Amino acid sequence: MLRDLILKNRSYRRFDQKYSIDCGTLRELIDLARHSPSGSNLQPLKYILSCEPERNADIFSCLRWAGYLKDWPGPIEGERPTAYIIILGDTTIRKSLGVDPGIAAQSIMLGAVERGLGGCIIASIDKEKLRKDLQIASRYEISLTLAMGKPIEVVQLEEVGLDDDIKYWRDEYNIHHVPKRALDDIILDI
Amino acid sequence: MLRDLILKNRSYRRFDQKYSIDCGTLRELIDLARHSPSGSNLQPLKYILSCEPERNADIFSCLRWAGYLKDWPGPIEGERPTAYIIILGDTTIRKSLGVDPGIAAQSIMLGAVERGLGGCIIASIDKEKLRKDLQIASRYEISLTLAMGKPIEVVQLEEVGLDDDIKYWRDEYNIHHVPKRALDDIILDI
Repeated sequence: MLRDLILKNRSYRRFDQKYSIDCGTLRELIDLARHSPSGSNLQPLKYILSCEPERNADIFSCLRWAGYLKDWPGPIEGERPTAYIIILGDTTIRKSLGVDPGIAAQSIMLGAVERGLGGCIIASIDKEKLRKDLQIASRYEISLTLAMGKPIEVVQLEEVGLDDDIKYWRDEYNIHHVPKRALDDIILDI
Repeated sequence: MLRDLILKNRSYRRFDQKYSIDCGTLRELIDLARHSPSGSNLQPLKYILSCEPERNADIFSCLRWAGYLKDWPGPIEGERPTAYIIILGDTTIRKSLGVDPGIAAQSIMLGAVERGLGGCIIASIDKEKLRKDLQIASRYEISLTLAMGKPIEVVQLEEVGLDDDIKYWRDEYNIHHVPKRALDDIILDI
């Protein structure tokens, strides 16, 4: 059921780096995005794949991880993502990407979870460095980086408390806690 | 499999208006969005449900349908959506919604398809009228309207031709054809 996939699809940031992902799998995931809705059917999104250690390291060096975990600079060597999909917008097709990147990212991440993988949608990117390192032409707007791997962390959902604090946090056992707003708090009664 | 759901999840614009959708189903769908990723986990999205004919008609009057079908002003009475979910952004939580609405919309639409429903993500909205008709407070940015119902139209995918034309079209049998770019055309070889 979709609900099981969605519940399993947490933002994972620590992976078994011994587990590699082949580019064929990434192509399958992009094919899910390809068949997902696109505003005015313009399909301006383009994708860069990465499943090799060297390119993975280049991309990793451009990412900022888990803003709320002030003492955690990101996954250590051995726990880093083993694949990436970078979502670009081809500005010669459309200047504004609208909601297309979000739709595509969700299709890809759900597909990853179905394959026993997982990852994190990262918008906090040093885009200038990434563009230079990967020689991304100026016609492509860098939208998102999807970091993927075999997750090794436990992510636990809980309800936002009375203090309305949505910041995720890690406990002494390294369990990652994520507060979610209650259903009745996000449905407007008009 | 997710792929089957994604392939079945076409943008449907004609429905069996005799088939009503209850608000409990809409709440289930929003619960899928609630458990989907949100940038910095801020969860700024709020939702308005509609499953009653009167409110449905109000919302319908604010939507623009299928821009490429110049001779078709939208579904006729009897073929209109029987439910809507309006996605709003609470600007007191976050000014820019980023990719959150796209992620939420895809979760909701896939959930609808799993339930034998279907619909269309509509960004072309008379927002001023919608805000007035539904008395939506100014703190909420109107992002998307998801129109839903029991689809009665056949949507057929095909590959974009050499003319690079992505406009969807309807044939003499009212089959809706949607050209999609080929996988190799959207993956950059860098």
